[in-house]
Amino acid sequence: MAIVLFTDFGAGDLYVGQVKAVLQRFAPGIAVIDLLHEAPAFNVRAGAHLLASMVGRFAEDSVFLTAVDPGVGGARNAVVVQADERWYVGPDNGLLSVLAARAAKSDCRRIVWQPQQLSASFHGRDLFAPIAAALAAHGELPEGWFEHAGGLDLEFGGDDLPEIIYVDHYGNAHTGIRASGIAREASLVLGARRLSYARVFSEVAEGEAFWYQNSQGLVEIAVNRGSAARLLGLKVGDGVAWA
Amino acid sequence: MAIVLFTDFGAGDLYVGQVKAVLQRFAPGIAVIDLLHEAPAFNVRAGAHLLASMVGRFAEDSVFLTAVDPGVGGARNAVVVQADERWYVGPDNGLLSVLAARAAKSDCRRIVWQPQQLSASFHGRDLFAPIAAALAAHGELPEGWFEHAGGLDLEFGGDDLPEIIYVDHYGNAHTGIRASGIAREASLVLGARRLSYARVFSEVAEGEAFWYQNSQGLVEIAVNRGSAARLLGLKVGDGVAWA
Amino acid sequence: MAIVLFTDFGAGDLYVGQVKAVLQRFAPGIAVIDLLHEAPAFNVRAGAHLLASMVGRFAEDSVFLTAVDPGVGGARNAVVVQADERWYVGPDNGLLSVLAARAAKSDCRRIVWQPQQLSASFHGRDLFAPIAAALAAHGELPEGWFEHAGGLDLEFGGDDLPEIIYVDHYGNAHTGIRASGIAREASLVLGARRLSYARVFSEVAEGEAFWYQNSQGLVEIAVNRGSAARLLGLKVGDGVAWA
Repeated sequence: MAIVLFTDFGAGDLYVGQVKAVLQRFAPGIAVIDLLHEAPAFNVRAGAHLLASMVGRFAEDSVFLTAVDPGVGGARNAVVVQADERWYVGPDNGLLSVLAARAAKSDCRRIVWQPQQLSASFHGRDLFAPIAAALAAHGELPEGWFEHAGGLDLEFGGDDLPEIIYVDHYGNAHTGIRASGIAREASLVLGARRLSYARVFSEVAEGEAFWYQNSQGLVEIAVNRGSAARLLGLKVGDGVAWA
Repeated sequence: MAIVLFTDFGAGDLYVGQVKAVLQRFAPGIAVIDLLHEAPAFNVRAGAHLLASMVGRFAEDSVFLTAVDPGVGGARNAVVVQADERWYVGPDNGLLSVLAARAAKSDCRRIVWQPQQLSASFHGRDLFAPIAAALAAHGELPEGWFEHAGGLDLEFGGDDLPEIIYVDHYGNAHTGIRASGIAREASLVLGARRLSYARVFSEVAEGEAFWYQNSQGLVEIAVNRGSAARLLGLKVGDGVAWA
Repeated sequence: MAIVLFTDFGAGDLYVGQVKAVLQRFAPGIAVIDLLHEAPAFNVRAGAHLLASMVGRFAEDSVFLTAVDPGVGGARNAVVVQADERWYVGPDNGLLSVLAARAAKSDCRRIVWQPQQLSASFHGRDLFAPIAAALAAHGELPEGWFEHAGGLDLEFGGDDLPEIIYVDHYGNAHTGIRASGIAREASLVLGARRLSYARVFSEVAEGEAFWYQNSQGLVEIAVNRGSAARLLGLKVGDGVAWA
């Protein structure tokens, strides 16, 4: 059992610690794992695909607290999704919709509970954290805090996203395309460039660019001992195609 | 019960792990929460106001290990402050003085204990960590490690600081002004610019700048889906006024 | 008892959380300490010296999971080293060789076990984490997972490295030279510059550069309240000498 955090709050910023203080208060002794706090800021679609690529490796009773939430404090709803025996707490802005669409079964509840103090800008701390803690500590949804929802308000669907959705600190560019469906002979097209497949970094020369199946199962653009993002001028949102 | 860390040691650097190794040895099983390791480097006054804005949300028996400490290894003293039932370990250079001035009651003890190995540059690991661990593990000050002090050597006082004290990774600029005392009609003055109040990001147009009460209760300058720091050229230390 | 992580996976990136999910599954309740995730990328030699400078402060039963591993997925072996009662899991590419050479006694075993799912690019998660977890949870090597090795395949030796091996976020430049062997009268030579020794930052004027014995025992180049890296144009790999 663990609470897993996936946000754009910033790994070095002052937000994550405030979330953890709430979790520690309401779910003491339960492990908290920082999966990512550098999800592309304000980019809900990229975050939705990135999150969906990683959840399958977590234990079935995991509780995810998720926030890429530019509309916080506005009209968007907040939800708890149960998908393939894992729980997800977060905004109903599409962030949870890719993993829900890909799950064998999923269920959605709208959050109606409000804490005594609810800031306009930090629902991760004030709303999602107490709910994630309650779920993790008790293994079930607190009575009366939710209403059943037919589905999510905003759905991106479960299809791949042929774009760069994340650039890591090495400069590797992750796409929203699952590599299992792509033939190894295919060339990845990036503007005027074409990249071939390699199984692993050390199979290509130093400084050479290639695509491969990364450890999350996604198509990734990389350079052996170099930064693909810098070398090829890549950024989140750039489109990719196949030839 | 938790040990809460507030430092300028760097979230990605090799210092925090060394502190945690000491805490784990002397206070095994006690939760450690990273509140912030990116406090503005060498800027004790900004750190003092930032810390003071956040401590009220932590449980009353929390033990804070604090370090923004450019004078480490020199003549400044080290202290333990007890303020409103929370404990704070750190340098006596003003860092703890804002929260102490604002507390209903506070008490200050000078650290006289010295560890067997005390590096000149890393008291966070060698001095503050064993003391924070002892406090957290035993709930009281070890006998003979302290002498009573009439007050802190350096006091900034409890008043607001009309400056930018922190810029977060979104580019939002936090000031040292508590928002509860500011009328919503007031315009925040930044050089030649005037910014109006908004309750929340989604109330203004994309790319528009405004001020609001942030989740720590401070006046913050922000831009909807953009970076206020980049757009307005803001940095820690810039002064702000009202009109 | 703790599992200590030393990698170039990036403190803000999505890799460390995936490692921790595996550790949490196979070694629940055991403390995990992030020592460093910003080891210079691809630079195994710098990482080897940096790691060796810090291990002595960790408890004797600590289990280190280490990865600076540009050859992951290629021909390099993976090993478990036991040195001075601490355990180290990582690639056999020299990363563990400096600490092993300096240990009073050390012992090396090659990893022959393979997990059911082994990605080509993330042995830290798929191979090293289950082994580190097993070691930490059971205190011994799982039967049949290893074969005895006469020594490491790649050895850098235990001598000092007269180069900059790390630049921290303050801009301080750590060298691979142990300060205990250097006379305080010696001048550190950096290209055309010579720097004198100071015991501590506050002993020199603001903005002045000096060398000192840092808290890991290494010779470090620093500037009081400033960035030595920026002021002197320093980067990892730059050579240093004495005069």
